[in-house]
Amino acid sequence: MHSLIALLTDFGLDDPYVGQMKAVLARECPDSTVTDLTHGVEPFNIAQGAFFLAASAPHFPEGAVLLAVVDPGVGSGRPILVARQDGRTIVAPDNGLAALALIPEHAELHHVNQLPEKASATFHGRDIFAPIAARIARGEALSGFCHPVSAEETVRPLWTEPLMGRGKCSARVLHVDRFGNCVLNLRAGALGPLHNLQISTPLGRELPAVDTYSDLPEGAPGLLEGSQGFFEIAVNLGSAARQLGLSMGDAVTLRWDA
Amino acid sequence: MHSLIALLTDFGLDDPYVGQMKAVLARECPDSTVTDLTHGVEPFNIAQGAFFLAASAPHFPEGAVLLAVVDPGVGSGRPILVARQDGRTIVAPDNGLAALALIPEHAELHHVNQLPEKASATFHGRDIFAPIAARIARGEALSGFCHPVSAEETVRPLWTEPLMGRGKCSARVLHVDRFGNCVLNLRAGALGPLHNLQISTPLGRELPAVDTYSDLPEGAPGLLEGSQGFFEIAVNLGSAARQLGLSMGDAVTLRWDA
Amino acid sequence: MHSLIALLTDFGLDDPYVGQMKAVLARECPDSTVTDLTHGVEPFNIAQGAFFLAASAPHFPEGAVLLAVVDPGVGSGRPILVARQDGRTIVAPDNGLAALALIPEHAELHHVNQLPEKASATFHGRDIFAPIAARIARGEALSGFCHPVSAEETVRPLWTEPLMGRGKCSARVLHVDRFGNCVLNLRAGALGPLHNLQISTPLGRELPAVDTYSDLPEGAPGLLEGSQGFFEIAVNLGSAARQLGLSMGDAVTLRWDA
Repeated sequence: MHSLIALLTDFGLDDPYVGQMKAVLARECPDSTVTDLTHGVEPFNIAQGAFFLAASAPHFPEGAVLLAVVDPGVGSGRPILVARQDGRTIVAPDNGLAALALIPEHAELHHVNQLPEKASATFHGRDIFAPIAARIARGEALSGFCHPVSAEETVRPLWTEPLMGRGKCSARVLHVDRFGNCVLNLRAGALGPLHNLQISTPLGRELPAVDTYSDLPEGAPGLLEGSQGFFEIAVNLGSAARQLGLSMGDAVTLRWDA
Repeated sequence: MHSLIALLTDFGLDDPYVGQMKAVLARECPDSTVTDLTHGVEPFNIAQGAFFLAASAPHFPEGAVLLAVVDPGVGSGRPILVARQDGRTIVAPDNGLAALALIPEHAELHHVNQLPEKASATFHGRDIFAPIAARIARGEALSGFCHPVSAEETVRPLWTEPLMGRGKCSARVLHVDRFGNCVLNLRAGALGPLHNLQISTPLGRELPAVDTYSDLPEGAPGLLEGSQGFFEIAVNLGSAARQLGLSMGDAVTLRWDA
Repeated sequence: MHSLIALLTDFGLDDPYVGQMKAVLARECPDSTVTDLTHGVEPFNIAQGAFFLAASAPHFPEGAVLLAVVDPGVGSGRPILVARQDGRTIVAPDNGLAALALIPEHAELHHVNQLPEKASATFHGRDIFAPIAARIARGEALSGFCHPVSAEETVRPLWTEPLMGRGKCSARVLHVDRFGNCVLNLRAGALGPLHNLQISTPLGRELPAVDTYSDLPEGAPGLLEGSQGFFEIAVNLGSAARQLGLSMGDAVTLRWDA
């Protein structure tokens, strides 16, 4: 069985950690193809990793295994989540990393209950997560090393949803990309059609909502539903983060005619 | 048909964009092998990307598909170029990105005339370019979604050639590499054999031309035909960029006995 | 014969150099799978690269070819080492880069005596090392282009071992990772069981040795045998490098009850 394993971590590419995970996958599932989603998650930034996973998972073919490791709790005994949804399998620490990618009523959720014996205390990505992903990619039944859990038994952090009010909501910047676009924890389409949608930034700027970049004058910022499936604040041919002083974790307020 | 697809973008590796392009390629052409040329092009720097593509294309095996996306005009309706040369296929926005890699009288040039229907306005790399590369890698005939164009119908920016004079030329730094070598828009061999070739830098240094690094004393700068098929300014075991204060886009003047 | 080739260089991923090596490997050994160990070795830092190779090689499957290029002596005529150990093959300049990965009495050592004819003077990674790795991955006998050498004929730099004294040793920081952990040139288990092991840093801090991260209070530094097979100085959920002012190359002193 030939399968695709995609990796998402906060390990970066300068250390040999990702390479060692790939070595283990090559050893334990030689028939798989291993690809990189990204390893550029800010160290320990679960929310950013969760956005990357949610935005990317739908593009992978059926049968893909998505292995995500952003794990400040390594060694603490937090459970390991294995989730099946739309024919793909996500493997991740159960710390919220998969929470944006999963629709609870739609996914089959499991916790791993049988771990590899020889594992370093500090590098579970290589010693625990990669071997689990290899078992799944080899086509092993989950029942051999997992048990089903309900959505209530899994971690769903507060930042997975904006705080909704009447005619407004408070959202959070999950990610600032290379081009300075600021992605919010607000799914495209989540608000339905709204009148007079506006957004306020921490430094007091009021921005309009537009349909596409080209609706913005060059250099002007606005709110739009971007290519990643979430609302983002963008500047046409410029950096919204720099222009508006926005960083990951910042709160913004959206208002509309209620 | 098993084929090789090589990716060149200005997306970097910290965002999930390259990973999403690979997801689409895995979905739409599962038999291909996808490899990375580099994703470290400075955002929107078409000239640097063009140099990367020109320097690298000749090393790829026949049949390879080179997919290059550096696209400040995303959403503007610029044409998409598909070029066949020496058995390889280059797919790129027609904005000059492929201009250094292509010999106009030698390449078969096409514009794409049939785009995927569901495409985000902002991420053509994933939604338009990757599906096109997948069709080519699957062996589809170009005539199904492209039409031939002449070299005159494609974009060829000014920076693709140095400005030639009598006994001198004005060249431009296309790229500064990790080691500080400064690559010029001047092909190795382009000037023929010259007497007394010298180069002047913006800060007024005069440098000799040499055959190899080892002709330079340790720490001394000079001009040579490097491994990338273009002239470069280099320092033996040092950084030419730092020592000479050179950056991408800078102009330098070469002089020789006419 | 399908084989795995893993790449380790100091080329970074922003330049097209690694991509060009992969192009050559795809051309000369199309059946191989090419994977990245890392390309984030500091330019010319052989000791750091040697640690990456030593820490990672044991995780690769039998038959893998590990191609490592950190080569300040490019063009100087230093020999090229091909070493077989535990069923894997390491290809590297003979400058110490493979020294931490190899157990001299255990490895079969060779020097390459037949180089490709057309090679740039400056990019041996693409023009010499990649073609050699491709020949090995294709299953060619080493005797066709190598001759055996003894361990004494290969380079073994001083930094491969700490300086041992009575009840103390002087070790060196080989690598600082993304999380601030500082890896020493001292193998896990090398000292045997010790009483009262302590370490002094250049700025005069005295740290205890512990078994795992969780033996350290949050934010406190200590010495432990990490996941990479070497001792490292770490801070539980913090950066040892920042807290202790440690950089690559720094000397530290370990003391124990003799």
